[in-house]
Amino acid sequence: MEYDTITAISTPMGEGAIAIVRLSGPEAVSIADRVYKGSKMLEEADTHTIHYGKLVDPKTNQAVEEVMVSVMRAPRTFTREDVVEINCHGGLVSVNRVLQLILQQGARLAEPGEFTKRAFLNGRIDLSQAEAVMDLIRAKTDRAMNVALNQMEGRLSSLVSRLRQTLLETIAHVEVNIDYPEYDAEEMTHSLLNNNLLTVKKEVESILQTAQQGKILREGLSTAIIGRPNVGKSSLMNALVHENKAIVTDIAGTTRDVIEEYVNVRGVPLRLVDTAGIRETEDIVEKIGVEKSRKVLKEADLILLVLNGNEPLSNEDENLFRAAAGLDKIVIINKTDLETNLDIDQVKVLAEGSPVIATSLVKEEGIDELEQAIANLFFAGGIEAQDLTYVSNSRHIALLQQTIHHIDEALGGIEADLPIDMVQIDITRAWEILGEIVGDTVSESLIDQLFSQFCLGK
Amino acid sequence: MEYDTITAISTPMGEGAIAIVRLSGPEAVSIADRVYKGSKMLEEADTHTIHYGKLVDPKTNQAVEEVMVSVMRAPRTFTREDVVEINCHGGLVSVNRVLQLILQQGARLAEPGEFTKRAFLNGRIDLSQAEAVMDLIRAKTDRAMNVALNQMEGRLSSLVSRLRQTLLETIAHVEVNIDYPEYDAEEMTHSLLNNNLLTVKKEVESILQTAQQGKILREGLSTAIIGRPNVGKSSLMNALVHENKAIVTDIAGTTRDVIEEYVNVRGVPLRLVDTAGIRETEDIVEKIGVEKSRKVLKEADLILLVLNGNEPLSNEDENLFRAAAGLDKIVIINKTDLETNLDIDQVKVLAEGSPVIATSLVKEEGIDELEQAIANLFFAGGIEAQDLTYVSNSRHIALLQQTIHHIDEALGGIEADLPIDMVQIDITRAWEILGEIVGDTVSESLIDQLFSQFCLGK
Repeated sequence: MEYDTITAISTPMGEGAIAIVRLSGPEAVSIADRVYKGSKMLEEADTHTIHYGKLVDPKTNQAVEEVMVSVMRAPRTFTREDVVEINCHGGLVSVNRVLQLILQQGARLAEPGEFTKRAFLNGRIDLSQAEAVMDLIRAKTDRAMNVALNQMEGRLSSLVSRLRQTLLETIAHVEVNIDYPEYDAEEMTHSLLNNNLLTVKKEVESILQTAQQGKILREGLSTAIIGRPNVGKSSLMNALVHENKAIVTDIAGTTRDVIEEYVNVRGVPLRLVDTAGIRETEDIVEKIGVEKSRKVLKEADLILLVLNGNEPLSNEDENLFRAAAGLDKIVIINKTDLETNLDIDQVKVLAEGSPVIATSLVKEEGIDELEQAIANLFFAGGIEAQDLTYVSNSRHIALLQQTIHHIDEALGGIEADLPIDMVQIDITRAWEILGEIVGDTVSESLIDQLFSQFCLGK
Repeated sequence: MEYDTITAISTPMGEGAIAIVRLSGPEAVSIADRVYKGSKMLEEADTHTIHYGKLVDPKTNQAVEEVMVSVMRAPRTFTREDVVEINCHGGLVSVNRVLQLILQQGARLAEPGEFTKRAFLNGRIDLSQAEAVMDLIRAKTDRAMNVALNQMEGRLSSLVSRLRQTLLETIAHVEVNIDYPEYDAEEMTHSLLNNNLLTVKKEVESILQTAQQGKILREGLSTAIIGRPNVGKSSLMNALVHENKAIVTDIAGTTRDVIEEYVNVRGVPLRLVDTAGIRETEDIVEKIGVEKSRKVLKEADLILLVLNGNEPLSNEDENLFRAAAGLDKIVIINKTDLETNLDIDQVKVLAEGSPVIATSLVKEEGIDELEQAIANLFFAGGIEAQDLTYVSNSRHIALLQQTIHHIDEALGGIEADLPIDMVQIDITRAWEILGEIVGDTVSESLIDQLFSQFCLGK
């Protein structure tokens, strides 16, 4: 299929040494040639070569930029189309100018994700691989990156296509049975169906078990620090931020009101929620009211409940325990440098089996233990294996859940001795739904919507 | 000269489609080869070619990233050394991982500006051109970009070297005269010296005349909007921001307290100071106190003084006029959609000849006139010429001023009939100082200091 030629700035906006304006499409090289002045025409260049030169505005004959131009011809490119990458000096004006010049020569400004979309439409990658490209860009930790990389390499795709193959064979078997009932006894078909469907179901369930971890790896473990005033919440936040490499994030859009801070604790990305708020008010519960704070706590993946070991447990502390009851939490007994006046046994009872860690944030003691406890909580069950295929995308999770639903329906139909062609409808639906993960059976509007969440220039 | 091999992330930090890790130095290619797995070794690759492959961590044998690697061999590179650029997926984790992997193979993390420094040390560009590279990256408007581009192309360099040539010839003439006094009459030498020095002085002065504009082009016209509450300051700010393309800037470092907003008004970069402050408090004077506000006003390059045309002039308005007395300002009479109750003639007297513009920000009237007034104020004197060599760098400005000082000393010496070899000292000093602009006669520590102001990866 042949598309028009698109262009966009493909490096992050900001001051940097190098910026890239990328073109993709049948006219990529000829459009670049209209403004490029070097030792030879880009049309004459071999594929995968780099050319130094200037961009000259044909209207004013003025040099616009000093550039290095990469020429990459189809099909060995990101989009499988002809691709030209113009490396110019970083900086907003410089790169915008190059983009404007290219647009004036007839390229169209790419929509967000359109380069990757073309890679998908041109058959270089499937939908789950395309989605992994975006996850890769947004990854906050090494582990999240590995998950995305695995997915991009097609692990999820091949898993899904294996399952679909099993379902397809099952469907084929049923078809044969319907058309030529004399070839097979009905009971045998039922038992084969049962086995195949249970196998698929089990595999889908085991992928879904990684969903929670996958989602956290992708989006970060939403973490709330609670405690009475002056128990050391700010110190704890600072310790976590300073001990670990803070993950710098882009503040999207115009609102700068809520600043989330990401820290990478032993591979677990913590998203410290409403950092500024906690830092300034020293008391999230006091600030936002009891009802609302309960909501914040409920939405958190992890609660760090801080107590002052130097003081006996207060009513306020017990209220906090109640608010955090049943939620994933770690209890931190701070100020171990001072005399212990807290009833540790009582705390352990209130902790309901959650880890209790003693720290002296002033003396920087106990932070290692805390970090280990966070990592243990997250990686409990030993799913630390590097090569595991996590599923982290909520679209994928929903599709896998629907798959299970239809397999259950089919299994129920077999149980209830429904006509075999009724059962087949559900199996076929499960096969279709799995196909949506890799993009075999998705609508155009879904594709448009998916890629529109991408960043520009990808 | 041979250096070690350096590496850095050369694209801005943030989420983007592509990020680049750049290597420069004798081992650039062999270091990349230790982690690159593709269809052939990079060592075997031709210069200026691009190679698809994977980066594999030799310790774990795990694929780290999918990459496109550009191989560019000395001397046709940015640094005149072997350069390798690794294009990886954008995103912080991804690019950091690639950088770490390269560092583990023996490359050294580049200091800020070190790539450009090598281009300078290896003789590809001179110092003023190197400085222009940074200006190019930081340019906020097209004009600033053109200035930087001119400088990078060596306009300032060739101007300076022409002036130095004149000085050198003058010195040579003096030398000859000292060694062989019989060849020349003393009066003739004096008159030749006078002429040459005056020529150089005049040219240096004319470059210096561009300094103010050059500095503003580079750093933006620091602009304060003042006025009583509810005269329309926020509306004015919004009108300026929304009518013009706001220049997105990176918030450097960790502090996000002061947000400056850049807008490009007809080629004039306005730096709207303390935007948030004005927007929220609606009154800069009230908020920061009279003394401090005077200081803010004094530091502003341009004051936009907003009045309410619907109300008579108040004492507060007159105070604002007093605070802005003698400073560059434009007076804006807002709310022309309502009845005029302001004494326009009185305002014109208080404006001391500054432009007075009537606007109705509600009806979006008068904004064009205001923008034209800003452009006129800035480009008065018709120095709009595209190809003018502006000097904008404060180091250059200081050096040019010192040059004039020494030429004046020399001229004074001639006037006072000082021995010609005394005069020669000042001429030589002027020649040396001009040389510092292009880096002919600068110390190593100055060079280190200059390049350390660069951004990382350039």
